[in-house]
Amino acid sequence: MYRNFAFKIIRSFKKSRLGILETPHGNIETPAFIFCGTKASVKGISPQQLRETKTQIILSNTYHLFSYPGSEYIKERGGLHKFTGWNEPMLTDSGGFQIFSLGHGSVADEIKGKRSGTSTLVKIDESGALFKSYWDGSLQLLTPEKSIEVQRNLGADLIVAFDECTPYHSDKNYTEQSMERSHRWEKRSLKEFIRENDFSQALYGIVQGGVHRDLRKRSAEFVSENQFFATAIGGTLGSSKEQMYEVVEMAMEELDGSRPIHLLGIGGIRDIFNGVELGIDTFDCVHPTRIARHGGALVKSQYRDSKSREHINLKRSQYASDDNPIEPDCDCQTCLHFSRAYLHYLLKANELLALSSIAVHNIRFMNKLMEEIRAAIYNKNLNDLRGIWC
Amino acid sequence: MYRNFAFKIIRSFKKSRLGILETPHGNIETPAFIFCGTKASVKGISPQQLRETKTQIILSNTYHLFSYPGSEYIKERGGLHKFTGWNEPMLTDSGGFQIFSLGHGSVADEIKGKRSGTSTLVKIDESGALFKSYWDGSLQLLTPEKSIEVQRNLGADLIVAFDECTPYHSDKNYTEQSMERSHRWEKRSLKEFIRENDFSQALYGIVQGGVHRDLRKRSAEFVSENQFFATAIGGTLGSSKEQMYEVVEMAMEELDGSRPIHLLGIGGIRDIFNGVELGIDTFDCVHPTRIARHGGALVKSQYRDSKSREHINLKRSQYASDDNPIEPDCDCQTCLHFSRAYLHYLLKANELLALSSIAVHNIRFMNKLMEEIRAAIYNKNLNDLRGIWC
Repeated sequence: MYRNFAFKIIRSFKKSRLGILETPHGNIETPAFIFCGTKASVKGISPQQLRETKTQIILSNTYHLFSYPGSEYIKERGGLHKFTGWNEPMLTDSGGFQIFSLGHGSVADEIKGKRSGTSTLVKIDESGALFKSYWDGSLQLLTPEKSIEVQRNLGADLIVAFDECTPYHSDKNYTEQSMERSHRWEKRSLKEFIRENDFSQALYGIVQGGVHRDLRKRSAEFVSENQFFATAIGGTLGSSKEQMYEVVEMAMEELDGSRPIHLLGIGGIRDIFNGVELGIDTFDCVHPTRIARHGGALVKSQYRDSKSREHINLKRSQYASDDNPIEPDCDCQTCLHFSRAYLHYLLKANELLALSSIAVHNIRFMNKLMEEIRAAIYNKNLNDLRGIWC
Repeated sequence: MYRNFAFKIIRSFKKSRLGILETPHGNIETPAFIFCGTKASVKGISPQQLRETKTQIILSNTYHLFSYPGSEYIKERGGLHKFTGWNEPMLTDSGGFQIFSLGHGSVADEIKGKRSGTSTLVKIDESGALFKSYWDGSLQLLTPEKSIEVQRNLGADLIVAFDECTPYHSDKNYTEQSMERSHRWEKRSLKEFIRENDFSQALYGIVQGGVHRDLRKRSAEFVSENQFFATAIGGTLGSSKEQMYEVVEMAMEELDGSRPIHLLGIGGIRDIFNGVELGIDTFDCVHPTRIARHGGALVKSQYRDSKSREHINLKRSQYASDDNPIEPDCDCQTCLHFSRAYLHYLLKANELLALSSIAVHNIRFMNKLMEEIRAAIYNKNLNDLRGIWC
């Protein structure tokens, strides 16, 4: 069923795994970070720059491409790989996350460059989700079958079953009902996937269940029992870092460990260390590229200032006279050529180059982090690495 | 006086010259095109991308950098080369063009990302030009001495004497008075240049005189008689293409042919062929990078559509299903990876990547044009080349 795909665990250290995820467009060394190219483009970054920063895989969002320019259009262009010039591994999500998040208004700021109105979730029922397009306000229905069809048209290597992303504030009863419906939707996704499987794509199941141990357990069992290639941990992960680790841990308990495991939407440095230690293989998050557009540059602990957590804000006036690169030991083109002072100036002067330059650094930073995590799993000294990066 | 600079003419064909302009930051093969990095950055393009597109030289505008962040600041950062990471030849203009153009409101759209108000020319007198900063509305005085001091702080290889850019609608009497004052300003620029010449910079004189043959002749004689390293042809070039060529030709008549000759602000393909045929060595214009930000991609004649002159507008709906690159024979990263359809989509979706990708193509296009022009001067077949590019 997944004959052109494989996941090989090379070495383990406690629960952490060093692996290789094989796809028709190349291998991904795991643990790996997946960068967001929401609308078929990592904002301001070319495929060449992605390669130079050692990026292994990017994702695009089904929700956005479904609304505009439409998946049939991208299919006519030869699919996402050909269309974007990124001929390496890609993932698309199911579209569910955006529909449901936008329904609650929490990720509306994600949608840049919108033309008219914002998305609204109109109705959820057993068939799927009815919503208004962020692009033109038209009514659109996304069902499990439609999501798979759209993702088939887009042609990414890794695709994701359609689910409802249950918000944190839902009560346990709703979370359970929603999870059960997500399971039915995932089964329908799988059925639709199998119906026209041409072996060019592999399907992820998603674990739901909110913050409830018994639900997460049931959902993990559901996913493991079905013929998904891999597993993604979705839904709310709680309201605090501590709860996030607890929820991820409970979701992991019943999972099929021979499959790759993806943690949806998580990209903080500490979170990645914690995730890797719980056995997560891949992560994605808009964070590294999004903060870049606001002047945020990711730095290892020794390069932070008193106000920074995991990144420094280059808009701060203290950087106006800082002639050092973002990180002196970084090998990205930005750190090789530009000082913090120049980037500060470019941000103040509203120069486009600031945005792509800081993004190049942040992408390289994340890839370097994952490279070192992989080496540390191999060398069984993951904990030593944490102090440098966190 | 210009011991670290030289201009060597390798070969001539009629009035066209194949040359090498030597600067402390490297040699420029001429005829060459100088790209606008107005505010110490070619919008959205990294130094690495400039090198990949075979860019030889860029310019920054004294006017903008004088207003913000200030030339002392850039001097503290080690000068423009170090600040921008572009360690190759650079030019700065005198600041005059922007002050006087903005006084007439004609290039106000150049000033992107402005914070408050627009520039206003408050007063011109013998001392210099008083204007309101586009950045913060403060009153600023630019004199010949100040312009040279600012350009010394900025540290470009090639710098330009301060002049008044006389508008086309001025009568002959004003044009003559303005030219005479520009000559006095240029002498003061030269004196200030010599006073602290450390041999790291070379000074251009500017030919003024509007569209009047006798004035252009006198101005050309003035520049040739003074110890400028090179000559720039400035001021109005008339109201039509025909008049432009006539004015350039008259300005060229009395010039010292052993010096490099720059034509200010001209960057159309036909104009460049005509300029080269009149003996122009270098050109600059914001056109290739500015049209890119509006979806305009430069193409050779065979790749144009019915509506295009020297570029195609990728926003036009006909490109939505055009799977060809901008130019199939172009070696830029954009043409190697992206179709016209993808660029059309990126423009429609307001994705940043569109702007930098089309700019990369246009920059490579202009450099390739100049490469082929140089080869054609060498091979004495410049006219054959014109049909391919115009």
